[in-house]
Amino acid sequence: MYKELKIEDLAYIAGFLDGDGCILTQIVKGKTYKYKHTIRFSIVFYQKKNNHWFLIWLQKKISKGNIRIRKDDMAELCILGSIPVKELLVLLMPYLIIKKNLAKLVIDIIENVKNVSSEASFIEVCKLVDKTAEYTYSKKRTITAITVQETFKLPVETVEFIETK
Amino acid sequence: MYKELKIEDLAYIAGFLDGDGCILTQIVKGKTYKYKHTIRFSIVFYQKKNNHWFLIWLQKKISKGNIRIRKDDMAELCILGSIPVKELLVLLMPYLIIKKNLAKLVIDIIENVKNVSSEASFIEVCKLVDKTAEYTYSKKRTITAITVQETFKLPVETVEFIETK
Repeated sequence: MYKELKIEDLAYIAGFLDGDGCILTQIVKGKTYKYKHTIRFSIVFYQKKNNHWFLIWLQKKISKGNIRIRKDDMAELCILGSIPVKELLVLLMPYLIIKKNLAKLVIDIIENVKNVSSEASFIEVCKLVDKTAEYTYSKKRTITAITVQETFKLPVETVEFIETK
Repeated sequence: MYKELKIEDLAYIAGFLDGDGCILTQIVKGKTYKYKHTIRFSIVFYQKKNNHWFLIWLQKKISKGNIRIRKDDMAELCILGSIPVKELLVLLMPYLIIKKNLAKLVIDIIENVKNVSSEASFIEVCKLVDKTAEYTYSKKRTITAITVQETFKLPVETVEFIETK
């Protein structure tokens, strides 16, 4: 995956992502998940519906992602899942400027999610997810480490520490 | 100028410009201009005020442009003038995707402006400027080839032809 991408492709995509893309990390509820929540990772590129062709070009370039035409005259290309998101971020990392620190944090979260072995460690990962909001100026977050913790009804003191790189 | 830019810099800037930048061509009124109007060329990069540092980084990278902090929580880096705009667009051209055709048209206009020798040929250039609106979805244009022509009070038939490349 992503093997065919040249330096100029990666630098271009990094520039485009810095300018008009999103690296999203969201806590999502679901009864079937071990901790009643999961972390969803995605990279999203937006364009006006008129420039839909560009998203098709980009999708072909990175051989990944799904295109969705939205109702508000916009289209988006979404790369979903920790593995493709991490792989793309690692490749873009040398070229990212604005979103470099966010990308590092997201890779960190993806690594930490693998090591989750308890509700407490899951909450620590959720705290890192909350931290991504500092980079994205997101105001729409409703599920945070605190709301997850409330679900578990865990006292704060028992939360174990996960080192962030 | 722009000599120090590597392939990955140019590709990154092209991606950023495609995503969140503007290539602007405007007809501007002014009594001191030969045709009572001039064509203003600019490339503008926008960022939230928080990411002001990025515009400083970019300004340093391209050794060009002025940064302005706006009142609406935004900052912008503006490269103004036909020569620096053309030079940057020529360098970015191989890497631009979304704005490639617009960039070609703007370079074309810059070339044509040099050859303007009459009101009629100035109007032909203004028509090309109007054409850029097709790429930029601009709805704010008030000065167009038609309004310029009205200023000159020229009959349409006398307008001479300028070949566009």
